[in-house]
Amino acid sequence: MKEAIGVFDSGLGGLTVLKELIKNFPKENFVYLGDTARLPYGSKSPEVIRKYTEQNIQFLIQQNVKCIVVACNSASTVIDFNELHGTPIYNVITPGAKKALDVSVTKRIGLLGTRATIASRAYQQRILKMDMNVDIFDMACPLFVPFAEEGMDLDPITNLIAFRYIQPLVDQKIDTLILGCTHYPLLRGSIQRVTQQSIALVDSGETIALLLKEDFSQGRLKQSGSGLVRILTTDFSQHFKNLAEKILETKSLEIELVQI
Amino acid sequence: MKEAIGVFDSGLGGLTVLKELIKNFPKENFVYLGDTARLPYGSKSPEVIRKYTEQNIQFLIQQNVKCIVVACNSASTVIDFNELHGTPIYNVITPGAKKALDVSVTKRIGLLGTRATIASRAYQQRILKMDMNVDIFDMACPLFVPFAEEGMDLDPITNLIAFRYIQPLVDQKIDTLILGCTHYPLLRGSIQRVTQQSIALVDSGETIALLLKEDFSQGRLKQSGSGLVRILTTDFSQHFKNLAEKILETKSLEIELVQI
Repeated sequence: MKEAIGVFDSGLGGLTVLKELIKNFPKENFVYLGDTARLPYGSKSPEVIRKYTEQNIQFLIQQNVKCIVVACNSASTVIDFNELHGTPIYNVITPGAKKALDVSVTKRIGLLGTRATIASRAYQQRILKMDMNVDIFDMACPLFVPFAEEGMDLDPITNLIAFRYIQPLVDQKIDTLILGCTHYPLLRGSIQRVTQQSIALVDSGETIALLLKEDFSQGRLKQSGSGLVRILTTDFSQHFKNLAEKILETKSLEIELVQI
Repeated sequence: MKEAIGVFDSGLGGLTVLKELIKNFPKENFVYLGDTARLPYGSKSPEVIRKYTEQNIQFLIQQNVKCIVVACNSASTVIDFNELHGTPIYNVITPGAKKALDVSVTKRIGLLGTRATIASRAYQQRILKMDMNVDIFDMACPLFVPFAEEGMDLDPITNLIAFRYIQPLVDQKIDTLILGCTHYPLLRGSIQRVTQQSIALVDSGETIALLLKEDFSQGRLKQSGSGLVRILTTDFSQHFKNLAEKILETKSLEIELVQI
């Protein structure tokens, strides 16, 4: 499929980004790559995450995509380029950091992420570069990805773990919370039981859609496509298929198995 | 290191097996391989698990080991050979199945494992081949590995998830429970809060040590070594190092990074 928007993530999480992109650009073609044979990325070292990310980007470039959205925060933290061989590469960190600054009134911002994302300090550095007068309170949430992969939003046990991770940030009187992992919107119900209405959630899918909209309007990206969506994964599981269909609200998703 | 016993697992879990082997054979040399760059295995497909397992076995054979213990239940389910190029290969399923049959009086046996291990029906088939008159009650526990990797034994949240997974088996009046994943002994405290004293736990480390003891006494394996232990991983994380030191009860573990 030529002229598609490439999107990749370690697994299911990036589908929350894909869904938002499809909603915003329904006529575009998309190629989604879930690197399920090597997931999760968030507990791995920067070196290994970089190796996998570069392989995935090369693979998507071979699929003739017109741009690539790195829809995985852990992978985004190791990307320090905006294009490769002329293909624009979008990461989810920069737009998330900007959006959080736009939304926050008190400049007390919370950040949730995988151990890799938090340790990289990518969000913290980007936010502080734009505004030195911000207090950032972060928390690594290593168990959120497994719970999201299990589809356990609003399960009492998920609510408990959400409380443990997020209440210390609420106690710091944050007014904005960055969901710094594309899996976390899958646990939005449990997360909002802790944050309640007063804390704004910043979600990678929404922010990256805004950035692409800007690039379409400024001509950096050209419109094309006919609304086709291909889903590729590096491993097949029925469990992934079921959850992917639930996230994308479709009944019979065709998933192609690829080797990287 | 020539003439070592090779042990491999996707990550930390196999260290419970290694610990038991070191306890039983303190003079042997060991090479432990944790495939941390690709963990976990238990949520992946049999094809992908087989590919990774074969690569790990080949790698260990190149290290001149005298035998290989596949200390990962998910990997053991895809191994259908007992030796490769003259090197004995041990899996953890067969001895675990035998031990459970030995221990159980009521012939009502519970089985916990990853989604891959339960779906493979490897334990169920081996047990029923030895004794048709056994009732087996199984439960996939996909969240146990993440909790074990977080070192969260006896945490109230781990206790809750253990109750959810195990109580249905207790209700079936099992008298024996196979911990069909090498990570699960790391959650023994939380598991025993549900099983209490009346249910015997069968643990891969203990059963594989018995099998090796038999092969040493029958001459299938020759004694050698000087008590050296090498730990190799395919990715490095401080978190792994800390937990590995805790499991092996040692203070400064040297971990070598390898590529497979």
